[in-house]
Amino acid sequence: MSLREEIGEQPAVLAHLLRTQEETVREVARAVRGRAVHWVLIAARGSSDHAALYAQYLWGSRNGLPVAMATPSLYTLYESPPRLQGALVVGISQSGQSPDIVRVLAEGRKQGALTLAITNDPRSALAAEACLVLDTGAGPELAIAATKTYSSQLLAVAMLSAALTGDEGQVAAALGSEPLRQIPALVESALADEAAIAQAARHYEAMARCVVLGRGYHYATASEWALKLEELTYVVAEAYSTADFRHGPVAMASSGFPVLAVVPGGAAYADVMALLAALVAERDVDLLVASDRDEALALGSTAVRLPGGLPEWLAPIVNIVPLQLWTYHLALAMGRDTEAPRGLSKVTRTW
Amino acid sequence: MSLREEIGEQPAVLAHLLRTQEETVREVARAVRGRAVHWVLIAARGSSDHAALYAQYLWGSRNGLPVAMATPSLYTLYESPPRLQGALVVGISQSGQSPDIVRVLAEGRKQGALTLAITNDPRSALAAEACLVLDTGAGPELAIAATKTYSSQLLAVAMLSAALTGDEGQVAAALGSEPLRQIPALVESALADEAAIAQAARHYEAMARCVVLGRGYHYATASEWALKLEELTYVVAEAYSTADFRHGPVAMASSGFPVLAVVPGGAAYADVMALLAALVAERDVDLLVASDRDEALALGSTAVRLPGGLPEWLAPIVNIVPLQLWTYHLALAMGRDTEAPRGLSKVTRTW
Repeated sequence: MSLREEIGEQPAVLAHLLRTQEETVREVARAVRGRAVHWVLIAARGSSDHAALYAQYLWGSRNGLPVAMATPSLYTLYESPPRLQGALVVGISQSGQSPDIVRVLAEGRKQGALTLAITNDPRSALAAEACLVLDTGAGPELAIAATKTYSSQLLAVAMLSAALTGDEGQVAAALGSEPLRQIPALVESALADEAAIAQAARHYEAMARCVVLGRGYHYATASEWALKLEELTYVVAEAYSTADFRHGPVAMASSGFPVLAVVPGGAAYADVMALLAALVAERDVDLLVASDRDEALALGSTAVRLPGGLPEWLAPIVNIVPLQLWTYHLALAMGRDTEAPRGLSKVTRTW
Repeated sequence: MSLREEIGEQPAVLAHLLRTQEETVREVARAVRGRAVHWVLIAARGSSDHAALYAQYLWGSRNGLPVAMATPSLYTLYESPPRLQGALVVGISQSGQSPDIVRVLAEGRKQGALTLAITNDPRSALAAEACLVLDTGAGPELAIAATKTYSSQLLAVAMLSAALTGDEGQVAAALGSEPLRQIPALVESALADEAAIAQAARHYEAMARCVVLGRGYHYATASEWALKLEELTYVVAEAYSTADFRHGPVAMASSGFPVLAVVPGGAAYADVMALLAALVAERDVDLLVASDRDEALALGSTAVRLPGGLPEWLAPIVNIVPLQLWTYHLALAMGRDTEAPRGLSKVTRTW
């Protein structure tokens, strides 16, 4: 299975997840409601860490749960982890094999916290350590850059949020809601735009460095897009929330500097658009806009249309897909090895 | 006051902080002990966000307190903040003026959480919103890039950690301990190395992009160094924990690719050294090593000596100083405006 094929599998993978994991999601939600969970600690690396970022915004905003990112070295190298009382400790990992992520869950279990693994391998060490397991069920992912496992992690996070919203009697309705059920079809429609996306990628063939901007829910998308760029094209691509970008890094912006921006409609739209308009007018940056809004798309010298049609909290699940395709086509144009980037292996074990 | 003068003021600023804030630090520690604080939420941007990273490792490791970074847009643009029960809510800001940081503290106060401002302006909006105020007392900082306010934020964070270690009877001894009192003299000694540091900077005059690596306590130093580089030299400099770097971005490393690494002795030393040795042997990267260890310094094509002589948990306070100097000299060599980088103002207000 090639990277391009795995990108194309996403509608089926997401539909399968919606169909098969509803009961597990209900079980996780019941356990969280029953255990007086006050906060969430997430351990994850790479693309999975961006699914964790999405969870930080989603569970914080819709479910009132503060989310902290684990600092795994405190559990491994320093051997002095913090207290985890009242936490739901979550490990997100495609392979479920990185020892540092497993160790964070083991510490949670040792301290009596509720533990959850979101993984593509329910027989992995991570799953074995966890009290609850959400299987993303995306099938084997052979290309080294994660695509279908990332979108399926996001959907698992979103399903859990839906199941935790309102009381237990409302869970069935939330999990069967129209917006969630639309996701596979919207991903399918995004894939149909491939020719335009490939065209938009070609302009960036000579790029060596860039920043990727997003805010709120879309900071996760910007971060994941930047990682795909680094893995697949070797471009140094640094993701920033637009607020953090204003606090210093904006000094880098000058004529022709490549700025890639994820700007779907939503609560952060006006704030991000104001920054982008200033970057174009005052700094003459080379702006690529990814958006579902015509006004935003018109601001960039290059445009990538995002699907739209979903409430903002679900949009990241589909928005990453055209950006995966864009990066794939840029890697092709640059003559990179899209299946096995330099020096990477599918399973990374860090300590 | 110029940037170079403000860098040079740090021994005096840190000595002043040690002398004047001991009583306030005790008061904060008493309030934390008295309030059943289970976790910490920190809101910060720019350099202050790297002081927050240091606090995440330090308070997590030495004081058992899990630290979450706030996502300010949930408090402002999305207007749906999470529950903050049992939290110490901390705002770190030189100016104390960014509305999003102030808003996070206001929400903490509204929800009945204990709130603390670490700021250089005790009359700021942030200080007014906070129940407790730690004044970094660094004096006016006129250069746009933060230097003395950053190291003083780290020292404030470290003093609070010392005051929270052990029981209340041990606080006086902890705050008067030899390692804390040595800090100003060690910073002074780092400044004396300026000629060698300036020489080490000149080699990078043509650099357009790089990564800056560190792990554990030193990830904060890598992050702050990368931000100084972006602000002062306009080089795209992305900081990574070495573990995160292995999970994908390492694909960027090829012959001549600039890798700057912060590798002081400590719990993460062997792990980071193993990665760096592989990057040199297998990828032929252009490696700069900042360390207090001869073995590490010998691995790089360029070396910046760090002071050493402190326990690892305090080392970040002094280690940033030679790297500030290095970046200042690189900015001079590149002909940049060291006092007022392009498009930045001293106080950034984000929402």
